[in-house]
Amino acid sequence: MNTAIFYHAGCPVCLSAEHLVADALDHSKYTVEVVHLGEQAARIEEAQTAGVASVPALLLNRQVFHINFGAALSDLQ
Amino acid sequence: MNTAIFYHAGCPVCLSAEHLVADALDHSKYTVEVVHLGEQAARIEEAQTAGVASVPALLLNRQVFHINFGAALSDLQ
Repeated sequence: MNTAIFYHAGCPVCLSAEHLVADALDHSKYTVEVVHLGEQAARIEEAQTAGVASVPALLLNRQVFHINFGAALSDLQ
Repeated sequence: MNTAIFYHAGCPVCLSAEHLVADALDHSKYTVEVVHLGEQAARIEEAQTAGVASVPALLLNRQVFHINFGAALSDLQ
């Protein structure tokens, strides 16, 4: 199974992307996890290590895709 | 049926996004069309009208998501 992690911070840009993009993924191919970095600050480091620089971002099998721009990861720390 | 249009320009950033993101979409929910604006310059205006400012970009039911950054649309004209 492929893994998709959608990192966001609850901002309007993030939520719009979450609803459409995360829902548009093929859930039969991808296990989709949604991580709210504002509420799960302990996972910011994990996101950084994966290459996430801003949210919203989608991690598909370890490859990062920054989708539009809501907030820089550094602003969440 | 929902429509997803993936606009790109053949750049490395575009192709990486195309392979992973376009393939990850749920094709049972979305009709996925891939448009190479470098080869189909006639569709640049359509992309602009839809709000696309740079490629690669994904249009899900008329909402634009800019994914990473490959090239500005103005550079393709």
